[in-house]
Amino acid sequence: MSLIDQSLNPAGDTELFTDGQWLQALLRFESALAQAQAEAGLIPHSAAAAIGDVCSRIELDRAQFIARSRRTGALGIGLVEPIQAALASGHPAALPYLHWGTTTQDAVDTAHALLTKAALNALLEELRGLVTALSALASSHAATPMMARSLLQPAQITSFGLKCAQSAAALLRSVQQLSALAPQALCVQLGGAVGNRAAMGAHGARVESALAAGLGLWAPGLSWHTQRDAWMRLGMEAAICAGSLAKLARDWSLMSQFEVGELAEAARGKTSSAMPHKRNAVHCMQAVAQTQAVPGLAAALLGCMAQAHERALGEWQAELAAWAPLWRHVHGAAAALRLAAEGLQVDTNRMQANIDALHEVIFSEACVDALTPVAGRAQAQQAVERLAPQALQAQQPLSATLRQWVASELGAGAAADAGRALSAATDPLRAVQASAASCAELLQALDATLASSFNLEPHHA
Amino acid sequence: MSLIDQSLNPAGDTELFTDGQWLQALLRFESALAQAQAEAGLIPHSAAAAIGDVCSRIELDRAQFIARSRRTGALGIGLVEPIQAALASGHPAALPYLHWGTTTQDAVDTAHALLTKAALNALLEELRGLVTALSALASSHAATPMMARSLLQPAQITSFGLKCAQSAAALLRSVQQLSALAPQALCVQLGGAVGNRAAMGAHGARVESALAAGLGLWAPGLSWHTQRDAWMRLGMEAAICAGSLAKLARDWSLMSQFEVGELAEAARGKTSSAMPHKRNAVHCMQAVAQTQAVPGLAAALLGCMAQAHERALGEWQAELAAWAPLWRHVHGAAAALRLAAEGLQVDTNRMQANIDALHEVIFSEACVDALTPVAGRAQAQQAVERLAPQALQAQQPLSATLRQWVASELGAGAAADAGRALSAATDPLRAVQASAASCAELLQALDATLASSFNLEPHHA
Amino acid sequence: MSLIDQSLNPAGDTELFTDGQWLQALLRFESALAQAQAEAGLIPHSAAAAIGDVCSRIELDRAQFIARSRRTGALGIGLVEPIQAALASGHPAALPYLHWGTTTQDAVDTAHALLTKAALNALLEELRGLVTALSALASSHAATPMMARSLLQPAQITSFGLKCAQSAAALLRSVQQLSALAPQALCVQLGGAVGNRAAMGAHGARVESALAAGLGLWAPGLSWHTQRDAWMRLGMEAAICAGSLAKLARDWSLMSQFEVGELAEAARGKTSSAMPHKRNAVHCMQAVAQTQAVPGLAAALLGCMAQAHERALGEWQAELAAWAPLWRHVHGAAAALRLAAEGLQVDTNRMQANIDALHEVIFSEACVDALTPVAGRAQAQQAVERLAPQALQAQQPLSATLRQWVASELGAGAAADAGRALSAATDPLRAVQASAASCAELLQALDATLASSFNLEPHHA
Amino acid sequence: MSLIDQSLNPAGDTELFTDGQWLQALLRFESALAQAQAEAGLIPHSAAAAIGDVCSRIELDRAQFIARSRRTGALGIGLVEPIQAALASGHPAALPYLHWGTTTQDAVDTAHALLTKAALNALLEELRGLVTALSALASSHAATPMMARSLLQPAQITSFGLKCAQSAAALLRSVQQLSALAPQALCVQLGGAVGNRAAMGAHGARVESALAAGLGLWAPGLSWHTQRDAWMRLGMEAAICAGSLAKLARDWSLMSQFEVGELAEAARGKTSSAMPHKRNAVHCMQAVAQTQAVPGLAAALLGCMAQAHERALGEWQAELAAWAPLWRHVHGAAAALRLAAEGLQVDTNRMQANIDALHEVIFSEACVDALTPVAGRAQAQQAVERLAPQALQAQQPLSATLRQWVASELGAGAAADAGRALSAATDPLRAVQASAASCAELLQALDATLASSFNLEPHHA
Repeated sequence: MSLIDQSLNPAGDTELFTDGQWLQALLRFESALAQAQAEAGLIPHSAAAAIGDVCSRIELDRAQFIARSRRTGALGIGLVEPIQAALASGHPAALPYLHWGTTTQDAVDTAHALLTKAALNALLEELRGLVTALSALASSHAATPMMARSLLQPAQITSFGLKCAQSAAALLRSVQQLSALAPQALCVQLGGAVGNRAAMGAHGARVESALAAGLGLWAPGLSWHTQRDAWMRLGMEAAICAGSLAKLARDWSLMSQFEVGELAEAARGKTSSAMPHKRNAVHCMQAVAQTQAVPGLAAALLGCMAQAHERALGEWQAELAAWAPLWRHVHGAAAALRLAAEGLQVDTNRMQANIDALHEVIFSEACVDALTPVAGRAQAQQAVERLAPQALQAQQPLSATLRQWVASELGAGAAADAGRALSAATDPLRAVQASAASCAELLQALDATLASSFNLEPHHA
Repeated sequence: MSLIDQSLNPAGDTELFTDGQWLQALLRFESALAQAQAEAGLIPHSAAAAIGDVCSRIELDRAQFIARSRRTGALGIGLVEPIQAALASGHPAALPYLHWGTTTQDAVDTAHALLTKAALNALLEELRGLVTALSALASSHAATPMMARSLLQPAQITSFGLKCAQSAAALLRSVQQLSALAPQALCVQLGGAVGNRAAMGAHGARVESALAAGLGLWAPGLSWHTQRDAWMRLGMEAAICAGSLAKLARDWSLMSQFEVGELAEAARGKTSSAMPHKRNAVHCMQAVAQTQAVPGLAAALLGCMAQAHERALGEWQAELAAWAPLWRHVHGAAAALRLAAEGLQVDTNRMQANIDALHEVIFSEACVDALTPVAGRAQAQQAVERLAPQALQAQQPLSATLRQWVASELGAGAAADAGRALSAATDPLRAVQASAASCAELLQALDATLASSFNLEPHHA
Repeated sequence: MSLIDQSLNPAGDTELFTDGQWLQALLRFESALAQAQAEAGLIPHSAAAAIGDVCSRIELDRAQFIARSRRTGALGIGLVEPIQAALASGHPAALPYLHWGTTTQDAVDTAHALLTKAALNALLEELRGLVTALSALASSHAATPMMARSLLQPAQITSFGLKCAQSAAALLRSVQQLSALAPQALCVQLGGAVGNRAAMGAHGARVESALAAGLGLWAPGLSWHTQRDAWMRLGMEAAICAGSLAKLARDWSLMSQFEVGELAEAARGKTSSAMPHKRNAVHCMQAVAQTQAVPGLAAALLGCMAQAHERALGEWQAELAAWAPLWRHVHGAAAALRLAAEGLQVDTNRMQANIDALHEVIFSEACVDALTPVAGRAQAQQAVERLAPQALQAQQPLSATLRQWVASELGAGAAADAGRALSAATDPLRAVQASAASCAELLQALDATLASSFNLEPHHA
Repeated sequence: MSLIDQSLNPAGDTELFTDGQWLQALLRFESALAQAQAEAGLIPHSAAAAIGDVCSRIELDRAQFIARSRRTGALGIGLVEPIQAALASGHPAALPYLHWGTTTQDAVDTAHALLTKAALNALLEELRGLVTALSALASSHAATPMMARSLLQPAQITSFGLKCAQSAAALLRSVQQLSALAPQALCVQLGGAVGNRAAMGAHGARVESALAAGLGLWAPGLSWHTQRDAWMRLGMEAAICAGSLAKLARDWSLMSQFEVGELAEAARGKTSSAMPHKRNAVHCMQAVAQTQAVPGLAAALLGCMAQAHERALGEWQAELAAWAPLWRHVHGAAAALRLAAEGLQVDTNRMQANIDALHEVIFSEACVDALTPVAGRAQAQQAVERLAPQALQAQQPLSATLRQWVASELGAGAAADAGRALSAATDPLRAVQASAASCAELLQALDATLASSFNLEPHHA
């Protein structure tokens, strides 16, 4: 990851898809394949042992790997030649069995699945932390009234807890979907030169199972060399998860505006060279920056699906290049928001003050209901529509304005009745009940799901 | 759909997301909502009946609907005001109960789900036809040898049937995933002004269920007004399906090149004004054209997920605008390829001729195996690597070239043994067996799935 | 345009790329081509007259046009056959000269350039209106202090005028670039079947010039049938323009938040069915919605550039389908913001109040400078960093806080000196001068450019 | 660049936007800014010298830079603090003048412009090489007949030279546009905290000019901190260039198919582990892979333009992250195709053979013209339409088939006349003349442009 990417990723210590990891994963493929083929009786056990031995000890030279790949266009050449050289000196008899019946794409796709499994687990870990923090916020603020906003304008009352629970629920749906899709995506690739496993014949399925077990991946039962839908399905779910993260970052950054002031990220010292007073929503910024690139990467990956014949000229390779950034971005966004959530400062007084600033006109709908018994629905509606702007203008509570109108139009008795009804209709704590109830429902479902494991491992017999 | 879009869509007769359908769906929402609220005891049955009556008879004026929406930014105004006007004359008592406890987005999202259900069913219908045609091709050509190609170069032998079966399997995975995701996506929206169903209180869930049953949609149990992940999940699966369709169109258009000549679409008369001899792959072209826009639309939709607070300023509306084109494109591509598949002309002679043009060098790997018993693996490999280019150059079969080499190096006896082995190693019908077997496996799984229903309907108690 | 698209486009009355316009533009191509060829002596004048006559009177049947295109994949068939039929009855001698030496793509690309010229002129018209309105706002508010914000937090003082002038300048750069690119993009296409104008031989250039003059387009001097860079350059500039529009819509929608309250769009009656008090930024919403789709469309168009050989299988056709939405979106966004700008209500009191709410801490940098003479830079910096948060907390002006600190640390004399300097340092009207000056510079440049013509017409000798 | 990215980039030795380059560019900014401010009399010359001294010697710690940026969200903190520490020990008097009147974004944007200038020059260098090689191919093959193809089907005759010249011309248009746009894009950024250069007052313009001269960049005369159009314009032109490169890679990879065989990349030894005979179009593959991601990156960048207020929360930072990959991809694609072009093997015999395989039916249009004098146009057209498919089927030249038909219908004399005309009409060397002439025209224009400089440097007085 570049300086810029690292700077925007608060979880940069978790390295994903590094060059070192790539080279190790490729070596693990060759070693595990030989082992699986030996178990299936296709190659001698001694050859598998020799290959495994070399793969565990060899250090692939990154520069030479790249030079070979660049010249030939085949990522596998840079992997196989050095191992061959090592075998040639110590275990020449094993030479014919290295990379046997397989092809570059098998090695690369399988290694990619290994690295993606690590990335997915890292993402799930961040999501668990974020969902847990959101659940705690939802629990604490289930009935904390705040302004709901539509088109960035005040709408009605909701609770901060419900907003948190809704985001938590969306993210948990992504967790569940990612987990459900993994077994079809984090699979070994074993198709041979053209995807029909011709070399291994009837033993193909057995080798595939053993290889999957050896690597901790799933066995797909088929070659996915040019049919990339299952693989893409996992990637697109990561992109959807990024969308849910972006929504959360958008909301919190808006709520963190000085003029709104309902949220602040944990203090972290001076963050601006020229403006010492600023309290920037740094983690929200990082999450926005990380998620911004995701739709474009998703589009690039979808565009790579048109892979010609039995191996694409360019599209497969482009998929390789666009995959890692997608996962890093989603992981970085989840990490940034986890940190934001864990340190979040919620200003409930300010939430109430922002409600108060509307002088009860956000309760217009409820006021119409409150006035209907005394004034009839049509007249009630007209009165509210006419007087709400006046209340706002005069900075006087709507309920008072309406009670005055009832008094002048319908007399004191009606005004007293209306007063009681209006008082209830404009009570934020009453108004928040609907959101509190929705929040409680979501939290119940969340708790049940959070208890289950987030770490993915295939079960091999 | 515009002239250009229609021209590129061979299934244009199936109109999706038309203006008329939109207006009808919005009316159905208002009518079904009133009915559901009456069943829940929230509004009088007479009001629901009046609203239902008006909604079934009223013709919304498209131009006025647009004018109202444009001015206010709220799509619901153009829906509610005309119904109010109609109610005012005939059923004034029902007026307060129209659109009660709900909001524009509830109506629009629910109507959108109705239209999307129709689009999904239309897509599933085309996919069924395409998968069926592909299965038939796979079945007929399970063991038809053809060249597999990697990086657009000849690789080894596969069968045309396997290619068809692989595409069919990928598309069927999309069918299954679309079906599995629909119940979370094709849902009524019932969140009220800010997504907490405040107006309907404890009755919310009951109204939602009744509304879903009335409209043939699913009941989500929550408001999805700004958490769009489940909805996007369905859209992204459509985009993945487009990717699988694009791969098929790419393959077939390449195979239809004059110089390759393995496939042709059904003849359809003169297709070029200046080049009367051309036999264009028109349906492949249409599928390529239709799928080309999908990744960009998917990106736009993912980018819309960052919907601020309780209703977005622009992102929700942009999602509305980008959704229909996505479905139309995928549907159009599926229809084009269904037509291509149903009329496809497969030239098996040309497939064999293209294999023959390689003079057996594509069997190099198998020839190494065949020579190993007589020459040892290392020597066999070197011989094949050296002689394969010569065979290609001299236009002489590789097996003959290799037998000559064995004869000159190891004598006539070895040559006779090698000859038998090489003859088997270069037999396309033997080489195709691996693909034929893979094809048969896929077909068995396909047949099981194809038998089940493709048409989606929720089951309501 | 669909119901949804129309609802989001306040300028929907300006129809762009309609079916009727397409058919007319195609007919104009055939007519003008025959005329140009007659002028070049390639075909009889009588034939050109007959073709022109038929093209001016014929009504192409939309449904049949589509049906022909759909079947053949060639958009030109649906154009040529009906004209041929009309000629056959009245002017059979002209038949061989219809569509002579040309091909479908020539007709469609040229017609597309005609429609795009109309779209570009419509866009330029909206941009002129918007830039004019922005210039007026910039002029009025060149020295109106408002909070500048970075990362959505208060930064320092700027002027509302400067913000308007910066947007106007960016949009005017797009106007100039669109105008500069048009002569290379709004060109006739005349390549014949494969782009070499074989049929017209040495007369090609002359026919091209005459055709361009006849249609009010430019003559490119080459065929751009598969090299689409000049065409794309115009489209990408439209996409960049959309980006500048999106920035403006983002700013204004944030400033229109109830809690910020610095801007409001012109009142337009009730805009929410459930929340009568809302004053939605409808035009900003429309601009956001319109621009949201543009990057995805730009990506789709760029992806279409890989057009194989002398006519693409799908990519050219996909480009056709994605081009019109791009222009409609940009035009709609420009129109929405023009309307917003023309009716914009600027609350300068609220701008000042938002500044005041910071209690002068946004002048921290200037306060350091002010204190440096009396306290030394290092100490001044430390004092400001320590006391600014206190001032904010205590809701006391920073200048007062700092003067107290100087008094207690350095005595009354220093405090008096510091007081004067701090008073100047925290004066919004002084702080706004830098922005006012920048605004004036931009306005001067704007005025010069605005005076020139926005309407594009080629000059033909 | 990662292992995968490097493997796909044959020009990987030219490192662009590396971490080391970033840190150096940031230091250059601070040093040059102080120097420019000293020249303007704003800060002491001794301070500028001290700052320059430290910046030239300090080694910024990458890990600490990242840690600071990550925590604060401000990329500048990690730059300024270490320089401050170094100044504090040796030149404390210079401390107040470091980073004076400027802000993080000024440093980062200016450094980014420096790195982009290097990237642009590297790209121009590759494009020069590619255009030169294409021109040479165009020159050699201006009149080499080959099949033009539309919708991947044989169309008429063109020349390989014309195809090369068309690509060269398109790429040269990008070169010219990139050069023309650079002075507005490769600019210093000097806006201060909120883009109005408040701190530098009237000296702003002078400092900007001196800074630009010091860094070899252009002086924009305004702050482009949130109006990114000029910057994006350069990026979008790079994306358009990628589109032209993708078209070339598409064409050549199709022509390199075994079944077409018209082109081959230079031999480069064994490129496939399992298929020794393959001659992969490795550089075309790399170019396809590199260009595939560009539209998605372009979309991401366009989407970043909606930068709120005076510094965006996320969008600016995301732009930073997406910019470098765009340039690396385009540069990699240009380099790959330069290598492909420089070593390209053109098989003119195969080009002729592919023409011959059509048995002259691609000359249908010319044959109609040839027959018109003897048979009349209508009858000629019908005959060709009927007999062309027969000729193809019978593998007999169309001219012979048509002469037989004339003989049988119109007698021997007519057949002799027709024979001469048909012979000319089906002569590839005659048919190629139109393309040869177009090629010559393009080459003439290319030569004029190629002579001018490709290396960009601003001219400072």
